[in-house]
Amino acid sequence: MIIILKKDPEPKQLENLKAWLTGQKLTIHESRGESHTILGLVGDTTAVDIDLLRALDIVEDVKRVQEPYKNANRKFHEEDTVIAVGPAQLGGGVFALIAGPCSVESEAQICGVARSVKQAGATMLRGGAFKPRASPYSFQGLRGEGLTLLLEAKKQTGLPVVTEIMDLSQLELFADVDVIQVGARNMQNFELLKELGHTGKPILIKRGLANTLEELLMSAEYVMAGGNPNVALCERGIRTFETAARNTLDLSAIPLLKRMSHLPVIVDPSHATGIASLVKPMALAATAAGADGLMIEVHNDPSHALSDGAQSLTPEAFADVAAAVRAVLPFACRYDHGKAV
Amino acid sequence: MIIILKKDPEPKQLENLKAWLTGQKLTIHESRGESHTILGLVGDTTAVDIDLLRALDIVEDVKRVQEPYKNANRKFHEEDTVIAVGPAQLGGGVFALIAGPCSVESEAQICGVARSVKQAGATMLRGGAFKPRASPYSFQGLRGEGLTLLLEAKKQTGLPVVTEIMDLSQLELFADVDVIQVGARNMQNFELLKELGHTGKPILIKRGLANTLEELLMSAEYVMAGGNPNVALCERGIRTFETAARNTLDLSAIPLLKRMSHLPVIVDPSHATGIASLVKPMALAATAAGADGLMIEVHNDPSHALSDGAQSLTPEAFADVAAAVRAVLPFACRYDHGKAV
Amino acid sequence: MIIILKKDPEPKQLENLKAWLTGQKLTIHESRGESHTILGLVGDTTAVDIDLLRALDIVEDVKRVQEPYKNANRKFHEEDTVIAVGPAQLGGGVFALIAGPCSVESEAQICGVARSVKQAGATMLRGGAFKPRASPYSFQGLRGEGLTLLLEAKKQTGLPVVTEIMDLSQLELFADVDVIQVGARNMQNFELLKELGHTGKPILIKRGLANTLEELLMSAEYVMAGGNPNVALCERGIRTFETAARNTLDLSAIPLLKRMSHLPVIVDPSHATGIASLVKPMALAATAAGADGLMIEVHNDPSHALSDGAQSLTPEAFADVAAAVRAVLPFACRYDHGKAV
Amino acid sequence: MIIILKKDPEPKQLENLKAWLTGQKLTIHESRGESHTILGLVGDTTAVDIDLLRALDIVEDVKRVQEPYKNANRKFHEEDTVIAVGPAQLGGGVFALIAGPCSVESEAQICGVARSVKQAGATMLRGGAFKPRASPYSFQGLRGEGLTLLLEAKKQTGLPVVTEIMDLSQLELFADVDVIQVGARNMQNFELLKELGHTGKPILIKRGLANTLEELLMSAEYVMAGGNPNVALCERGIRTFETAARNTLDLSAIPLLKRMSHLPVIVDPSHATGIASLVKPMALAATAAGADGLMIEVHNDPSHALSDGAQSLTPEAFADVAAAVRAVLPFACRYDHGKAV
Repeated sequence: MIIILKKDPEPKQLENLKAWLTGQKLTIHESRGESHTILGLVGDTTAVDIDLLRALDIVEDVKRVQEPYKNANRKFHEEDTVIAVGPAQLGGGVFALIAGPCSVESEAQICGVARSVKQAGATMLRGGAFKPRASPYSFQGLRGEGLTLLLEAKKQTGLPVVTEIMDLSQLELFADVDVIQVGARNMQNFELLKELGHTGKPILIKRGLANTLEELLMSAEYVMAGGNPNVALCERGIRTFETAARNTLDLSAIPLLKRMSHLPVIVDPSHATGIASLVKPMALAATAAGADGLMIEVHNDPSHALSDGAQSLTPEAFADVAAAVRAVLPFACRYDHGKAV
Repeated sequence: MIIILKKDPEPKQLENLKAWLTGQKLTIHESRGESHTILGLVGDTTAVDIDLLRALDIVEDVKRVQEPYKNANRKFHEEDTVIAVGPAQLGGGVFALIAGPCSVESEAQICGVARSVKQAGATMLRGGAFKPRASPYSFQGLRGEGLTLLLEAKKQTGLPVVTEIMDLSQLELFADVDVIQVGARNMQNFELLKELGHTGKPILIKRGLANTLEELLMSAEYVMAGGNPNVALCERGIRTFETAARNTLDLSAIPLLKRMSHLPVIVDPSHATGIASLVKPMALAATAAGADGLMIEVHNDPSHALSDGAQSLTPEAFADVAAAVRAVLPFACRYDHGKAV
Repeated sequence: MIIILKKDPEPKQLENLKAWLTGQKLTIHESRGESHTILGLVGDTTAVDIDLLRALDIVEDVKRVQEPYKNANRKFHEEDTVIAVGPAQLGGGVFALIAGPCSVESEAQICGVARSVKQAGATMLRGGAFKPRASPYSFQGLRGEGLTLLLEAKKQTGLPVVTEIMDLSQLELFADVDVIQVGARNMQNFELLKELGHTGKPILIKRGLANTLEELLMSAEYVMAGGNPNVALCERGIRTFETAARNTLDLSAIPLLKRMSHLPVIVDPSHATGIASLVKPMALAATAAGADGLMIEVHNDPSHALSDGAQSLTPEAFADVAAAVRAVLPFACRYDHGKAV
Repeated sequence: MIIILKKDPEPKQLENLKAWLTGQKLTIHESRGESHTILGLVGDTTAVDIDLLRALDIVEDVKRVQEPYKNANRKFHEEDTVIAVGPAQLGGGVFALIAGPCSVESEAQICGVARSVKQAGATMLRGGAFKPRASPYSFQGLRGEGLTLLLEAKKQTGLPVVTEIMDLSQLELFADVDVIQVGARNMQNFELLKELGHTGKPILIKRGLANTLEELLMSAEYVMAGGNPNVALCERGIRTFETAARNTLDLSAIPLLKRMSHLPVIVDPSHATGIASLVKPMALAATAAGADGLMIEVHNDPSHALSDGAQSLTPEAFADVAAAVRAVLPFACRYDHGKAV
């Protein structure tokens, strides 16, 4: 951490600052320039509050050198994290193809979709039971019953299931769920993240619409700091000024997250674009950029889906995308300890 | 709602669509042009899922005419909502001056700040007990104990208190809190919003960093649809590409929300800018634009605040801002049924 | 175009509006609903000023159905545009690999880079002579002399050259340039675009940092309306809140532009990310998504480049990227009349 | 400037870097930490290319301490710049009220509007002769003839005129114009800015839709580095995800620019919002925040304006806004050497 002091800092305040920093077990290197004095801090600054330092009268600016995340940091954990999920895997060179409907609607629907996506090569089944909807008048998901149906589909097909939790009060219902998803709107629901840190379950955290990659890693850090190392990250589009697609899929998140962290990176082209015809090109792009997996919405009858129909593929269209992804995969970018090779 | 069909829609699919729309109790007006056919829908489209329609093969685009919110809509509730909060008020021409520290730290601190802001003209006391922090290593608030101290400050000064809830499991602790704040990161925590709809308490909802005004009103709608009409809105800055201040305070939200809705609009210049020296100009700007109140961070010793010190004013600086706000107030923009006059 | 009228429009004003619309040779379809009356306009609305209509007292909102661009519109020009550039091509299934240094610095430099990128498979040479730099104190390019050196490199290697024009006063110097590039900052320099419409030269227009795809196509329309159909589009990143890379590369622009327009789409991963190590994954992603080509910065000695060194590859690294791109190419997404197949 | 080196930098490369820095007349202060070595550079780093340093293998990151602008920097020019414009003024405590139509349409129109805005208290007349329009099919302004009409209105009313230049080839036509405006889309048209630096004319630079305040000051720096100190800045809204108004007016730009620079700051609420009913609240807000002036669109018959009608006020509405602004002005935020007092 570097503290840039204002010109001619008041000596007493400077002394106080240095004493406080030393109390935080930090070593101070001071460089005096013509217009600024710079304090370089050496030691563990993870817990130092940057805003607190900025509030001081004698401080002009504070810049971090060390990242504020530790457990999720590639620098302190060089090897890629690999998460076993039943017969499937997140990270570690086994591509995760997660597919299924936006919402679980009925046993026939979820089991039917599960069978078709399995046949097309999916390695996990997704499906929403608890649905975060912008309108209180929209379908809110089958909730507990949806979880039961999803687990029935797991039983019938052997596919591990990924599904979203919306509130920590729902946690006990997720005992048999394989991967618990934290949605984009809950990426900074810190009470929920803390609680998930006390489970050992694989957690898939979706990036919030307006959240930086650093903030995404800080949310992973919340889970990992609680003792749960099984975290995967999901890029699903960010909110920008462009309205031609629902969000802007930020694929540079893949190489950036690979460099910053050792956690697996999944891409969701369905929610990112909100348009079924964009799913194939964006799925291929994410694969080529070296994502560890994809999460794709599939519905047996997109026109009658109760939610997010516009972004769902038919099982046939999904099979076509899955085959195209498999064809690109051998030529995709690879990472060695976070570096594209 | 207007549905724009693709050129030469398949007749059978068009018939199905019309039947479905009629089943939703909507009347259809059809206009056939050279390159597009347009279906104008008349009736209550609040609950119609726009994405579902967009998913249909024969549909090119769907555009909303009617807003998707009802209870929060100025069109269906012409008179301004006024919320009594003990001796204070949100809306209705009585300016709300809400002040206090970011975090409650001790009895001496919160009661001391409460006394000074009351003397300077504050009408309510704010203070964080449960603190949403981006890092798990930052101070997380005194939590339950913080609420107790806040209520002690209320007892000593008579100021109603505003404080943030982070999870619905905390709700019972908020029984004696006057205004429950939903923070920006929880603006779309729909489970929490639904639960708050079953209380009768005043709820202050802060706009999320990447949320549109329509989405803010949809979150208000969640609370109101549950039966609680006592909702106020808070603009606290949105995330943009500009990094000179923490966020970009969007003051056009004031006249826009006044036109769209009848709910009171509060502005928080402290969190929006994150810089103490910007609080005064932005507080005056918000006042002049016709906000119903301000929420301002005040700390008795900003340099030692445990969180967000950079944006806190001293009690003296707050008294100066409060006096300046009172001076501008008689000349501020006024609204008559949502129109600036 | 659809005009949504306010409730109970003043009859005289409505009559005036209808007369004006009829005068624009538009046919009006009227649908009266309970809360809104809707006028559907049939005919060519390309030149109708949407803001003018929105200004009318009786109008609540206006929504476009028809796109405001014609020449660039896929709907009016179904076949892909193919632009021959000497032995190379933009569009038409021949992948364009455009490579070279950010700035032309010397004959040895540009000719040396030209030879290496040609050997690695580049089909065109890029190099900046006129350089738009945010600071007046930064190197501004060799200007006229830079163009001369670039043309010398073309002579030595046979590679067609792509270089940026910054002002229409420079146009006569570009007589022997193969493709004139309009930079992101000049995307809406309409005087320049108009003038380029009077040349027959291939024009490569880069998307502005904050410009929508529709605006990019409107800029293409400026050139095409002047009589020059040889326009190609370049996605090079947009400005968002995320600062981990220089800009956010928006690869969904590829399928979206393919659907909206028949013009070739090139992607520049070097400027988009500003980080050399991101170029390979983003180049592969763009290729897989079906771009018509790539524009990549290459420097013989990145550490001593006078500008944009951080995003330049060495010739060796470029050869590696080019080979990886060629490997992905056979499996990339393809478009048939703008639809991903 | 601070250079953060990677762990264990290659000694030969480090030596080269230090030699190069010393060659730039910079003094180096080195701090060695456990995980990073930091080089603090003392001296004038204005012209040092930050991207060039970032490109070096041994460098992890580079952070600026000193601003990259000098002439526009408050630190090197403590007193406010005041620009005399005939009988009016930009900066220096005399509020500039600039009003007029978006486009000059006819002598009757511009002279009529000029008389009414003068009567209502305007100190300068604005009007567009050269119009940057997103569509080639929209009205492009009366161009040279428009300038003639504008100067006629100046003659009749005595109001100095402000009008936009779109290309440096138009410069000679601007000889009698009082203030030359550089539009948002041309904020980084560096060839134009350089040329304007060689005139002595007052230049009003509008902030680009996606440009930071630092970039705005760099554009001012281009003009000032050429020898023209008469630069004023104009905030006119930035592009964000919010679409309820045309752009997001960023009023925190006022106190931030006051602190960063000594140049006058004008606010344009008309273009920022694009909605006539938002002009009054935003004009009052900008005034209260301490802007040096406002630029407001006024049309004698908004419904028939040929461009941007939706954001224009009638002369009566403008007179109301002007009176309201005058009422707020005595209570507005004031700045002393850039600090809000």
